[in-house]
Amino acid sequence: MKLATIRLDAPDSVTRRLRGRLVVVDDDQGTVAEVPEDITPDLWTALHEWDRVEPELRKTDARLKAGDHKKTRAFDDCRFLAPLPRTTSWLDGSAFIQHIILVRKARGAEPPEDLRTVPLMYQGVGDPLLGPTDDIPVTSEDYGIDFEAEVAVVLDDVPMGTKPADAEKHIKLVLLMNDVSLRKLIPRELKAGFGFFHGKPPSSFAPYAVTPDALGSAWKDGRVQLEMNSELNGEPFGHPHAGEMYFSFPQLIEHAAKTRPLPAGTILGSGTVSNEDESVGSSCLAEKRMLETIKDGKPTTEFMRFGDRIRIWMEKDGKSVFGDIDQKVVQAGATATVTTAGRA
Amino acid sequence: MKLATIRLDAPDSVTRRLRGRLVVVDDDQGTVAEVPEDITPDLWTALHEWDRVEPELRKTDARLKAGDHKKTRAFDDCRFLAPLPRTTSWLDGSAFIQHIILVRKARGAEPPEDLRTVPLMYQGVGDPLLGPTDDIPVTSEDYGIDFEAEVAVVLDDVPMGTKPADAEKHIKLVLLMNDVSLRKLIPRELKAGFGFFHGKPPSSFAPYAVTPDALGSAWKDGRVQLEMNSELNGEPFGHPHAGEMYFSFPQLIEHAAKTRPLPAGTILGSGTVSNEDESVGSSCLAEKRMLETIKDGKPTTEFMRFGDRIRIWMEKDGKSVFGDIDQKVVQAGATATVTTAGRA
Repeated sequence: MKLATIRLDAPDSVTRRLRGRLVVVDDDQGTVAEVPEDITPDLWTALHEWDRVEPELRKTDARLKAGDHKKTRAFDDCRFLAPLPRTTSWLDGSAFIQHIILVRKARGAEPPEDLRTVPLMYQGVGDPLLGPTDDIPVTSEDYGIDFEAEVAVVLDDVPMGTKPADAEKHIKLVLLMNDVSLRKLIPRELKAGFGFFHGKPPSSFAPYAVTPDALGSAWKDGRVQLEMNSELNGEPFGHPHAGEMYFSFPQLIEHAAKTRPLPAGTILGSGTVSNEDESVGSSCLAEKRMLETIKDGKPTTEFMRFGDRIRIWMEKDGKSVFGDIDQKVVQAGATATVTTAGRA
Repeated sequence: MKLATIRLDAPDSVTRRLRGRLVVVDDDQGTVAEVPEDITPDLWTALHEWDRVEPELRKTDARLKAGDHKKTRAFDDCRFLAPLPRTTSWLDGSAFIQHIILVRKARGAEPPEDLRTVPLMYQGVGDPLLGPTDDIPVTSEDYGIDFEAEVAVVLDDVPMGTKPADAEKHIKLVLLMNDVSLRKLIPRELKAGFGFFHGKPPSSFAPYAVTPDALGSAWKDGRVQLEMNSELNGEPFGHPHAGEMYFSFPQLIEHAAKTRPLPAGTILGSGTVSNEDESVGSSCLAEKRMLETIKDGKPTTEFMRFGDRIRIWMEKDGKSVFGDIDQKVVQAGATATVTTAGRA
């Protein structure tokens, strides 16, 4: 089953505007079916009572795919938002060791001593979360604008102290995302000791939230077993395999829930997908620039500029699994996306 | 005007359970009036259309205080939650310089070079936010359990790039809080570079959210001009003045909104209230321990243990302004507060 949230054309209240409309997706036919409000008002609420709601969503899904659903909408008639346009808990891990080693080198810093025993994780912007084709507004090109292609999972309520063996059952949906990064703001922030803040503005999400069972063989060992494709300004950039994730999602959940319960609707990210095999390319510019520095003494690839486009997707059997992220970087102020009120 | 959120006795849906019930507070009479759902379903939603909702809330407030409100409830009949039981954006500054200097000394670290030009800030747990008398569940006493008494402001939508001169109008409510800290988990986290995570579990809030105008002369220069009182296990602990905040809230808003818009419902914290004058005591144990170390070579005050109680409040004209925080530390597992679902 694939779910998405689309913008309401004429919301009659701020509550409805903030929620958007939850839909079930048939990406073979290119149609969606709206989920009736008496089943659930939105995806965030649904995750708080998933056991009750999921079977109802699957019934709607079955009707849609059988062509039995009375009222469907074509993709062209939908403006896809992020599957969760906001959440109270966006936690980003960094579970690809190769990425940590390379970006630390790029910052002139050593990887932490416990690199292979304790995952790195921070809490980032949960509101707004940008949709798949939303512009990325940035104030200055001097910030070192970068993308990071990641996978993420969406959780129901996870009690504090949950262990990996009990963690996987809390993974309800899988997402594909772009963790936008402002590289030149990060070194000062990490030096000051409080971690990422300015360097990690709002992230963007592919349109479909996919249940693990719908991934079939591509969901195994608590990891997404697919290549992460990215294309910068129409040119192929990288296709590393997301199965090389060092810590699994259940291990990341254990880390996240050590001293806090995780609320339903938590989005937990993998960190930038990165492989030891450099021939497959990277999922962010910082890594490519570091590899160039190691090889040639200095980077030749520049960070993103206003007008640059990034496309990110994963394929299975020749088909885009989560739908595509396809975004343009724009100068902040030249866009309506700089307040959360103006966006959705 | 003072607002609060109380637990619904028998919510008929998960949506209503998550929202709680918004009430207007008359803390002279010890009564509350429920805000009708057609005005706003909850405080978080209200903050997204504050210009429309605030006058309606003030009408309810006027009726309550005039004794004209038909149905009121006594405090004894209410279970107060945090004014916002969850938010998509909890940002904590550290705007009291003395606190930064002392806790860094305690960790054997130097204060950042730009201590007086760039505020320190991190994004923390926005869900759950604990109520004023909720237990504080912690897994182990070895974590170095500490409290931090802070003030915080609640914002409406703040555009990216907002400057201090435009920031104060976005401050809609003022809160009092306890930023629970696990001191012995923090040094490893800061060394790893990603900032606080395990060391900052869910925070707790005093019951009333207070409009700046209701603070009168105690709201000036973008700061709360009151003493921060704390009492540990019934013994006076500290009463530093919150007006000594080095960066004002408008300056903290500018910092927070540099690369992101701040969503309505953002809670922005001051950091632990701390004064240069050591005779007024502290607002956390870490500072007291550092002062003991400077004086005697080692700390004599211990961190909190299971069963310890912390009370935090601010007074104006002899009256508790935000209501009291009065909490007990308990061993996690021995309480119902370890999942967000179980709490509200």
